Amino acid sequence: MSRYDDYLAAEADRQRADLFEYLRIASISTLPEHASDIRGAAEWVSGHLQRIGLEHVELMKTPGNPIVYGDWLHAGADAPTLLVYGHYDVQPAEPLEEWDTPPFEPTVRDERIYARGATDNKGPLFTYLAALETVLAVDGRLPCNVKLIVEGEEELRADHLEAFLEEHRELLACDACVISDSALYGRDVPSISLSLRGMCALELRLETAASDLHSGMYGGVAPNALHAMARLVASLHDHDGRVAVEGFYDAVRLPSPEETAEWASLGFDDEALRAEIGARRLIGGGEHTTLERMWALPTLDVHGMWGGFQGDGIKTVIPREARAKLSCRLVAEQEPEPVLDLLEAHVRRHCPPEAELTIVWTLPGATPMTMPRDAPLVEAGRAALADGYGREALFFRSGWSVPVAALVKARLGVDSLLLGFGLPTDGAHAPNEHFDLSNLERGTRTMVTFFSSLSGRR
Amino acid sequence: MSRYDDYLAAEADRQRADLFEYLRIASISTLPEHASDIRGAAEWVSGHLQRIGLEHVELMKTPGNPIVYGDWLHAGADAPTLLVYGHYDVQPAEPLEEWDTPPFEPTVRDERIYARGATDNKGPLFTYLAALETVLAVDGRLPCNVKLIVEGEEELRADHLEAFLEEHRELLACDACVISDSALYGRDVPSISLSLRGMCALELRLETAASDLHSGMYGGVAPNALHAMARLVASLHDHDGRVAVEGFYDAVRLPSPEETAEWASLGFDDEALRAEIGARRLIGGGEHTTLERMWALPTLDVHGMWGGFQGDGIKTVIPREARAKLSCRLVAEQEPEPVLDLLEAHVRRHCPPEAELTIVWTLPGATPMTMPRDAPLVEAGRAALADGYGREALFFRSGWSVPVAALVKARLGVDSLLLGFGLPTDGAHAPNEHFDLSNLERGTRTMVTFFSSLSGRR
Repeated sequence: MSRYDDYLAAEADRQRADLFEYLRIASISTLPEHASDIRGAAEWVSGHLQRIGLEHVELMKTPGNPIVYGDWLHAGADAPTLLVYGHYDVQPAEPLEEWDTPPFEPTVRDERIYARGATDNKGPLFTYLAALETVLAVDGRLPCNVKLIVEGEEELRADHLEAFLEEHRELLACDACVISDSALYGRDVPSISLSLRGMCALELRLETAASDLHSGMYGGVAPNALHAMARLVASLHDHDGRVAVEGFYDAVRLPSPEETAEWASLGFDDEALRAEIGARRLIGGGEHTTLERMWALPTLDVHGMWGGFQGDGIKTVIPREARAKLSCRLVAEQEPEPVLDLLEAHVRRHCPPEAELTIVWTLPGATPMTMPRDAPLVEAGRAALADGYGREALFFRSGWSVPVAALVKARLGVDSLLLGFGLPTDGAHAPNEHFDLSNLERGTRTMVTFFSSLSGRR
Repeated sequence: MSRYDDYLAAEADRQRADLFEYLRIASISTLPEHASDIRGAAEWVSGHLQRIGLEHVELMKTPGNPIVYGDWLHAGADAPTLLVYGHYDVQPAEPLEEWDTPPFEPTVRDERIYARGATDNKGPLFTYLAALETVLAVDGRLPCNVKLIVEGEEELRADHLEAFLEEHRELLACDACVISDSALYGRDVPSISLSLRGMCALELRLETAASDLHSGMYGGVAPNALHAMARLVASLHDHDGRVAVEGFYDAVRLPSPEETAEWASLGFDDEALRAEIGARRLIGGGEHTTLERMWALPTLDVHGMWGGFQGDGIKTVIPREARAKLSCRLVAEQEPEPVLDLLEAHVRRHCPPEAELTIVWTLPGATPMTMPRDAPLVEAGRAALADGYGREALFFRSGWSVPVAALVKARLGVDSLLLGFGLPTDGAHAPNEHFDLSNLERGTRTMVTFFSSLSGRR
């Protein structure tokens, strides 16, 4: 592999500059004021795909943000065709004051790149692009056919992607999907996640009066929307943090004893996790281990809850309205829509009688997915990881959701390999998100091996 | 009283223009960015006091916002000396989008003046100033000595006023205090409130982790500050809305059977109140009537509660921090400090073990106060009201807090008469605050009678 190494060494500075340019684009899909940044990121990706030698590069329209497409299809009809997936949109950066350096000015500290999107998903996607560039530059060709789609609504909702996959079934026809939007089990542990949790979400509004009221005049008789919301949100969990929504766990298929034994051998350190996140204690304990709770059990988390006066000092109002945003992580065999029905039934049953409940929106985000561990593509990924990281690769599960994996299965009929190089500790969705330089480098080498070796194997 | 009437008729337009000029000043004391408006309001009041004939007008320094002082002391040593109190600061206007017209552009609709501060306290104070102007202009003198203080921190906290009263005991020496910062029992009901609830407040912070966390990675094991806050806030009340803080009601002295019988004769309409505030139901019912709960029982209301992501769409974080602001209305014989101790003990006992609790600040706002119904000043106020409104005046209580009433009792040793002309439905502290033109007019005539008749009576 030395000609690939030589190329990577010669191009390292320029490749990093390219990545930094990409990270500087504040492509936040959930905030309308960043629409031009979304456009800028899509154009940056399409320009880059052309520069590294992909063909038929195009910004394809959707009713929302464009999807960048590119391909290289000269490996022949007998060679496998891979669909590569990534996303160019990122989460909002708030709270800005908790960032040590600006979220959209990538900064290297302690051998890490700090930036919003560094690990989710700009950095990991870039390892794929750098590898494709390298193999094409060194060999002039790939041993497999590659189709790339990079979307701009992963952090928003996958509705447009689903319609896009359906509409372009022929263009996107492939033997398997490879997804960069994933992470390693841990630092220096080459590993493949075989499972993803699904997701569904909703926003609630409670209203208790026609206007905010003076607590001196009406205190003691007027209902308070914040009291009602506190009571409703408190009803969602028991004291140990288990979800108290009626029927919530009914569809859950627990992992096999063999799989939980495999996890036990990972030597997961609960105390290290607790210290890492700076918590006083972990919640939800009891009958299931920490890995089981993170990988194989569903969750319900409130992401935002607010109402009334949030400024300095005091304003003695009785707030008329309170809101909460929440989502569930789902596991096999839970489906998003039935879980949303359970949630709605629970909140309607537990809503205090003085409050009027509105479900502002629901989002049936993603079905949970599992990749068969004996699939040929899994074996190819495992071998490439061993090469890139210099040690044997492990199997594990992931707690998060990658909606595209469920969608390509449903719409294109193919399985997905989750081959990402971020770490669970990279701070995705949080302030000071980062991506290790060593994972950028080893991930790129892994993908060079992966793309250069995938020929008749399948 | 016809010469007073003639004067008021001739000056009505100019007086209303003066009030509107005063209402245009956004003198919000709780928001530091309005410091220049606070200064502007203080200067407007001092200029106006000089224009209407008061003497020794001065902006007196405090460690916070200045207190405007003015007096007229030529009634002689045998005449009574009244201290008149008002405040020039106002509440924040948020949420701005709920105002039908801009909060700091006074607008007359349906015979009401709409503006932030219209009823709390700029409009009612203005009735006093218009009356003093009228009596001085028509008679060239007052039958009583008057000292006026108008402060700029009523909506903030009374700490500086207390020190100010203590420091200027001799300057402010008086026989009684008259407070414009109060309201009538109801529309067209001349009435005097004999009692005020006290107040204490605090802000809480809960923290559960070192940073916000990705709910896909950590959901199921990481504690969530919003879940903890919901549980803690839900512990503050029972399902009927009664305060569940241990010992909270122990010091409460319930009203006498005679007084509750008097209230029953007021014919208070619970259903009308419910409809007026647009609530599905009133809370806290059971053993006490609505008037008892509003006037004679303590309360606990959460005024703001927040944490996590509040923007559009979804951000799947597990929030590390949640906050809540809350206050209690107090009744005799509750004192603010011991109630704060009970609150702190309760939240420490009920704080979920995964959360770290910080009491961000506490505010021992005001002791509850009661005016003896046989005081000579009460009788003078009742007679002036009957004159101004053309019917006999009633006694009632007020649910809110006027910290100055407790302070002048403690520091100057005098009782306070609550003689205000706002209505409980004027929307103080809420969007679309307003003050009836008819109360501006009848309140001014009441105060003309009051100031012109208060001579040897005491």
